[in-house]
Amino acid sequence: MDAIGIDIGGTKIAGAVVSEDGAILAEERVATEAGSSAAIIDAVVAMVETLSQGRQIEAAGVAAPGFIDVDQSTVYYTPNISWRNEPLRDHLRARLPLDITIDNDANAAGWAEYRFGAGRTVSDMTMLTIGTGVGGAIVSRGSLFRGGFGAGAELGHLRIVPDGLPCGCGAHGCIEQYGSGRALLRMANEIADVGGIGLALADARREHGQLDGSIVGALIADGDPGAVHALEQLGNWLGQACASLSAVLDPELFVFGGGVAVAGELLLAPVREAYRQHVPAKGYHPEPNFVIAELVNNAGVVGAADLARIHSRAR
Amino acid sequence: MDAIGIDIGGTKIAGAVVSEDGAILAEERVATEAGSSAAIIDAVVAMVETLSQGRQIEAAGVAAPGFIDVDQSTVYYTPNISWRNEPLRDHLRARLPLDITIDNDANAAGWAEYRFGAGRTVSDMTMLTIGTGVGGAIVSRGSLFRGGFGAGAELGHLRIVPDGLPCGCGAHGCIEQYGSGRALLRMANEIADVGGIGLALADARREHGQLDGSIVGALIADGDPGAVHALEQLGNWLGQACASLSAVLDPELFVFGGGVAVAGELLLAPVREAYRQHVPAKGYHPEPNFVIAELVNNAGVVGAADLARIHSRAR
Repeated sequence: MDAIGIDIGGTKIAGAVVSEDGAILAEERVATEAGSSAAIIDAVVAMVETLSQGRQIEAAGVAAPGFIDVDQSTVYYTPNISWRNEPLRDHLRARLPLDITIDNDANAAGWAEYRFGAGRTVSDMTMLTIGTGVGGAIVSRGSLFRGGFGAGAELGHLRIVPDGLPCGCGAHGCIEQYGSGRALLRMANEIADVGGIGLALADARREHGQLDGSIVGALIADGDPGAVHALEQLGNWLGQACASLSAVLDPELFVFGGGVAVAGELLLAPVREAYRQHVPAKGYHPEPNFVIAELVNNAGVVGAADLARIHSRAR
Repeated sequence: MDAIGIDIGGTKIAGAVVSEDGAILAEERVATEAGSSAAIIDAVVAMVETLSQGRQIEAAGVAAPGFIDVDQSTVYYTPNISWRNEPLRDHLRARLPLDITIDNDANAAGWAEYRFGAGRTVSDMTMLTIGTGVGGAIVSRGSLFRGGFGAGAELGHLRIVPDGLPCGCGAHGCIEQYGSGRALLRMANEIADVGGIGLALADARREHGQLDGSIVGALIADGDPGAVHALEQLGNWLGQACASLSAVLDPELFVFGGGVAVAGELLLAPVREAYRQHVPAKGYHPEPNFVIAELVNNAGVVGAADLARIHSRAR
């Protein structure tokens, strides 16, 4: 039966009715009032009610950024929304006549890729979602790996540099500070500052007041050497992280999603190169594949809906 | 029914008959001829035959150091034994009238702790075996996490220092080079070199020709400040690794096994301190427990036997 998936992002809330085979049957989208927990909950409730009208809905899944507990009911902590130990599932269940499941947004996206996208032919994959930050999802033998407290697969907070750049999580040197969209902008600005291959980046920065993801993305697509070099640095760090993750998780497949992943091969080539340089016991076990996510914009809602259906049937 | 567990180490091969509740009913032990694959296989076959005499045995499990494939039949690579893509299970099955399972030695030890030892009350634990090197095991929701190619949980090869010390695996900066028994000896030698708190270490080194694990262990037990400081450095690195692993695996429990773990609280205290300093999103989700393994010397054989029983029943 159809299910509803909601993906709460830092800037927008997306919702969809999703069929059992992952097809999107209807969609909604509103801006996130990130400062107000009550406003976000109101928006999710309204969206579920709108999407449910005139349909038979089996369950609703809500994907949220942040650490979620092992019962998938409480959001421990969300950096960009004011949730601290928020009993999100209970709040939503009290107002909606549906079975509600909550999940980490990167887990939902990873699950969608595993079920319907780039990971559908494997049983063990690791996904890195390269947006403003770096999200992670681990699928092992056909199940999401959640960890003992529910907050596993926070792969953006793997430490890649001891005493490195400070991270929003309170630690230092997390891969989020070296492999995210925000890190790409920092690197692009550093290259713009030094001239040479950075001249086009510097010109764009002067013209627009500051660099943003779409400006740098357009320069990458044009093959500008400065912007491409920034992306290569990013890919190099991500490849180093994958080498370390390989020792722990040993996936058959690494999937890259999120806005930065639209760069495609330009991102994957330096990832693979750095992986090969840094992987332990190189040559003595099979090399994973590195691919771009297939459901980029819809992965969160599709995964949230599918997980809600699965959880609802297990209860 | 009883099962046999064999643990192939770099210096000795241990074997035991193990009951369903993890009790050891009979034991054997021989030195490892590490240079000869054939001699090791002969020794394992002889040990299984001896241990089987006059008993009903359900299955035999063999724990080996190194990377093992996802079918648990081939050893991809063992640093200290000359195995490269060795079809170990087939070689043993051809000569023994028993169902044989092979497994990574650290996985076997971790499984034993989960079933009968320090991890028996949790469902998600991560074990670090601190011997000459650093081994790892991950139990998630009551199952060993093996990864897509079977070589997951090689936690000793998590990179902790970019461009750090070279590792036997071919990479650089692996935690094995900062958190192992071999690393402890390096640190103890460095402290011996500088005098001050290193005077007792320097004296012991002069007296015995060189420092070894039992000399440094005895000085730690005596409270010698130089030896304890070396252990604190080791614990600090291991705590940093646990902080990073927490973001990926989020276990309820970290278990420390292997020879170095006999130091007990002297090891765990700096581990916990470094963990708290480096863990992402500190304070926003439950803190794992850090404990010492309970089955230190027998974990490998007990785990190998239990895994063999489980695999045999699943076939």
